[in-house]
Amino acid sequence: MDRIRRNERMTAMMKLLSGTPNRIFTLNSFCELFGSAKSTMSEDVDMLQQVTKTFDLGEVETVTGAAGGVRYRPTVSRAKARAYIEELCGKLSGSGRVLPGDFLYYSDILSTPEIVNRMGEIIATEYYAAEPDFVLTMETKGIPVAFATANALGVPLVIARHFSRVYEGSAVNINYVSGSGNIETMSLSRRAVKENQQALIVDDFLRGGGTARGMVELMREFNVQVAGMAFVMATAAPEKKRVSGEKALMTLEITAGEPAEAIVRPAEWLR
Amino acid sequence: MDRIRRNERMTAMMKLLSGTPNRIFTLNSFCELFGSAKSTMSEDVDMLQQVTKTFDLGEVETVTGAAGGVRYRPTVSRAKARAYIEELCGKLSGSGRVLPGDFLYYSDILSTPEIVNRMGEIIATEYYAAEPDFVLTMETKGIPVAFATANALGVPLVIARHFSRVYEGSAVNINYVSGSGNIETMSLSRRAVKENQQALIVDDFLRGGGTARGMVELMREFNVQVAGMAFVMATAAPEKKRVSGEKALMTLEITAGEPAEAIVRPAEWLR
Repeated sequence: MDRIRRNERMTAMMKLLSGTPNRIFTLNSFCELFGSAKSTMSEDVDMLQQVTKTFDLGEVETVTGAAGGVRYRPTVSRAKARAYIEELCGKLSGSGRVLPGDFLYYSDILSTPEIVNRMGEIIATEYYAAEPDFVLTMETKGIPVAFATANALGVPLVIARHFSRVYEGSAVNINYVSGSGNIETMSLSRRAVKENQQALIVDDFLRGGGTARGMVELMREFNVQVAGMAFVMATAAPEKKRVSGEKALMTLEITAGEPAEAIVRPAEWLR
Repeated sequence: MDRIRRNERMTAMMKLLSGTPNRIFTLNSFCELFGSAKSTMSEDVDMLQQVTKTFDLGEVETVTGAAGGVRYRPTVSRAKARAYIEELCGKLSGSGRVLPGDFLYYSDILSTPEIVNRMGEIIATEYYAAEPDFVLTMETKGIPVAFATANALGVPLVIARHFSRVYEGSAVNINYVSGSGNIETMSLSRRAVKENQQALIVDDFLRGGGTARGMVELMREFNVQVAGMAFVMATAAPEKKRVSGEKALMTLEITAGEPAEAIVRPAEWLR
C-alpha cells in the first residue's frame, strides 16, 4: 500500500471512532492499520480533538492507563441540545397532534432515526459520568430512543416485556400499577442482566411514573442499581411522580378547549 | 476562523455524512461550513471516496441533478458480511443457548448496538437499490435491528403493534395466523404511512411466515408496496414459508438429542 496521508488517516479514524461510540481503541490498533509510528498517531489524535471541537461534533478523548487508548463520545452541548429540543417542541405543539383522551401523537418522532439518534446523544451526554452497564426500557415505544442512547453509551439495551416469553428462558416477573391504574406485569429474562450492574432507564413517556417505578423494582429484584432515568416526554401533571431524579427532554400540557392544544416545552434542566 | 485545512474538512465531512447515512448534503452546504470554493470541496469529496474504498468503510457517492450533492452509505461488501455473520453464527451455535421448546436465546445479540448496527448495514446494503420509503417491523424483538436498518437507509421506522393504542389515533387492524397457529391482531396507526409508498419489512425471526404474511397484508390495506423482506434468523424447517423473496442473515436448526444443539449458519445468499 502507498504511504497513507494524514488526511486519510484522520478521516478513517473519525469514521471508526464515531461508528462505535464510547469504545476505546488502542493507539496500537491504529498504528497497525495505518503502518504509522505511535508519535504520528498521537499527533493525528490531537488534531481530531481539535476538529471535533471546532465544528462542535462531539468529543475525541484519550484515556490513559493499561486499558487506555482513544474514544469518541457524541456529546451535545447544553446550548445545542436546547436549540434542538426547542425546535422539536415547535413541531409537536398545537392542535394537530392531539388525539381523543388528551393523548399526543408523536410515534413518528420516536422512530425517525435522525431525531432519535440526536435524542439518544443528548441523553447519553447526561449519563456518561454515571457509567451505566446497560440501558433498560419497557416495550414498545421507547425502544428506538433507548437503543440510540445505548449506542451512544456503547452498552447493551435490555428490554422488559409485558409477558414472559418462552423464547427468552426463565424470567423474573413483577407486578406494578400502570398509568391507567391497572395492575400489570413486567417481565425480564434472567440472563439479561448481572448482579451489581448499573442500569440507565430510558423510556418515551412519563405521566404518573407507575411504569418507571416498576422498572426500578424490577432492577431491585436483580440486585441492579439504577444510575439514572431519562424520558422523551413528561406530562406537567401530576407534578409529583412516583419516581424522582428523572430527566425528561420535553414537558407536555394539553389545554382544555375546542380544539384542545398541546403545549410542549423543553424540560427545566435544558433551559 | 483560521483557514481550515483539508484534513480538518475531510474529517468533519466524514463525521457529518456518516452520522446521517443516505442523506444528500449539497456541496454548497459544505462550502458554506468551511468557507471553501466548490472546486476545493470536489477534490475533498474525491479523496473521501478514495479513503472509504481503501479502508472498506462504506461508500461516499456524488449524486448529480437538481437535488444533487454527496451522500454516505454504510455498505458492507459480501465477503465482509459473510465473515461477520459467520462469526456471529459461531457464538450462537451449540447447546448453551437452546431453551426448552427448541427456542434459541439470542435477545442479547438483538440488542447489542455494535452487532445490531452491523446487521442493519448488511440488510440495508441489499435494499438501497429498492429505495424503500420506510422500514416496517412488528413489535418487539426486531425493533432494534429494524431501527438500525432504517438508520442506514435514512428512512423512518414504522412499528406495527399487537393492539391498537389510544395514543396512536385511528388504526387499521388485521388478523393473521401466528406461528403458534393462533389468530392474532396486528394494528397500525392510520397516520404512520402514506398510500403508494414502498415498505421494507425487517424482523428478528422467520419460522412459518405467518407474521410476515400479516405484515404484507397490512401493507396492502394501506396500498403500500412491499419492496423486500429481511430477517435476522430463519428456521431451516419448514422449508416452505408463507412468504417468498425474503433474505435472512442466518438459518437455524435445532438437533434432536440430549442436550439439543443449535446449528446456526449464514444464509445461502451470503455464502
